[in-house]
Amino acid sequence: MKDSVIIVSGGLDSVTLLYDKAEEIALAISFDYGQNHGARELPFAEYHCTKLGIPHITIPLSFMHRYFKSSLLDGAEAIPEGHYAEENMKSTVVPFRNGIMLAIATGIAESHGLKRVYIANHGGDHTIYPDCRPDFIRAMDGAATAGTFVNVRIEAPYTNITKADIVRRGTALDIDYSKTWSCYKGADLHCGKCGTCVERKEAFQEAGVNDPTEYEPA
Amino acid sequence: MKDSVIIVSGGLDSVTLLYDKAEEIALAISFDYGQNHGARELPFAEYHCTKLGIPHITIPLSFMHRYFKSSLLDGAEAIPEGHYAEENMKSTVVPFRNGIMLAIATGIAESHGLKRVYIANHGGDHTIYPDCRPDFIRAMDGAATAGTFVNVRIEAPYTNITKADIVRRGTALDIDYSKTWSCYKGADLHCGKCGTCVERKEAFQEAGVNDPTEYEPA
Repeated sequence: MKDSVIIVSGGLDSVTLLYDKAEEIALAISFDYGQNHGARELPFAEYHCTKLGIPHITIPLSFMHRYFKSSLLDGAEAIPEGHYAEENMKSTVVPFRNGIMLAIATGIAESHGLKRVYIANHGGDHTIYPDCRPDFIRAMDGAATAGTFVNVRIEAPYTNITKADIVRRGTALDIDYSKTWSCYKGADLHCGKCGTCVERKEAFQEAGVNDPTEYEPA
Repeated sequence: MKDSVIIVSGGLDSVTLLYDKAEEIALAISFDYGQNHGARELPFAEYHCTKLGIPHITIPLSFMHRYFKSSLLDGAEAIPEGHYAEENMKSTVVPFRNGIMLAIATGIAESHGLKRVYIANHGGDHTIYPDCRPDFIRAMDGAATAGTFVNVRIEAPYTNITKADIVRRGTALDIDYSKTWSCYKGADLHCGKCGTCVERKEAFQEAGVNDPTEYEPA
């Protein structure tokens, strides 16, 4: 039954969830909040939605670039290199980004009589991003339920699995991961060095799946 | 200590809260989401912030007009007349509007190292608007706290008082209520007939305070 909305960035995690729950999804929503890699990831969101026949919209949040502090909004040079879970990745946090995206998706769901919002945060996000943790998802689900007539639910089915688990799941679903984007720098190719690139590489390695990503030469 | 953000519409309730908590407020935020009465209420938000020396920004949310269903976004003709608490006022609900405004304000608070977001929903809103009720505010407070590093708190100090109580409080604070706007139709004068106008009139009557509002002749 197509009664759900999904937040899809064009990254590996949300594209996997899109295929995973395709039967339930009435509308896919992307957000353009001025992220460095927006021009790279958003076309992939559109690509997979078209392939699956799922309506897709992109919500512009141009005010975030002006009023929010984050290296993810400040150009490629500002993005730290190193491991995803390291302290220096904190600069890439866009304050309460998931809260904002979930609130807007909840309002759109209620406007269209849809009952569920899917988001693809996963276990590896917890260290750095407070708005990816189970406590946050539970509280936000409570807010969406209490704050809408149809009692919209928020579901984050990957909250307690790893990115490698997601790669395994998506491989079983026959997803073409060369058409997903992770790198926070947003250049022509994945840089291979920033936290999200390192995390992406490790996920394919740990899953024992061939990594189709073309990285910049070291 | 100026460590708080406030959501201020230019209406009677939020302007009162602005004066009430002025000592704590570092930044006031208004939202332009295509509401019929935006051109009437938003200049009053700016007016009172300037008077109090509080920095004020307006966040444009133009996508809401496109993707959200509400008579509040559909022009004056769509606004029902009658009592504020009546079933027909349901058409004025903008789905999860307070959730969206609070989420954005929370992100801006975290971006600026501020610790609290004030919102002026009150007891009379509960009947119609699910995102004004105590359960929603509590859950959203939990989401903001869990989803930010500084554990932003959401406070709605008028949740359990009436609009008449707010008028009494604002009168003691010497607020010029002729420079606030309630009418959902957004014409040159308050219409005097829509739910918010009726509620505004009743609040002044119940508070025993002279109503300075100029209403359209009946």
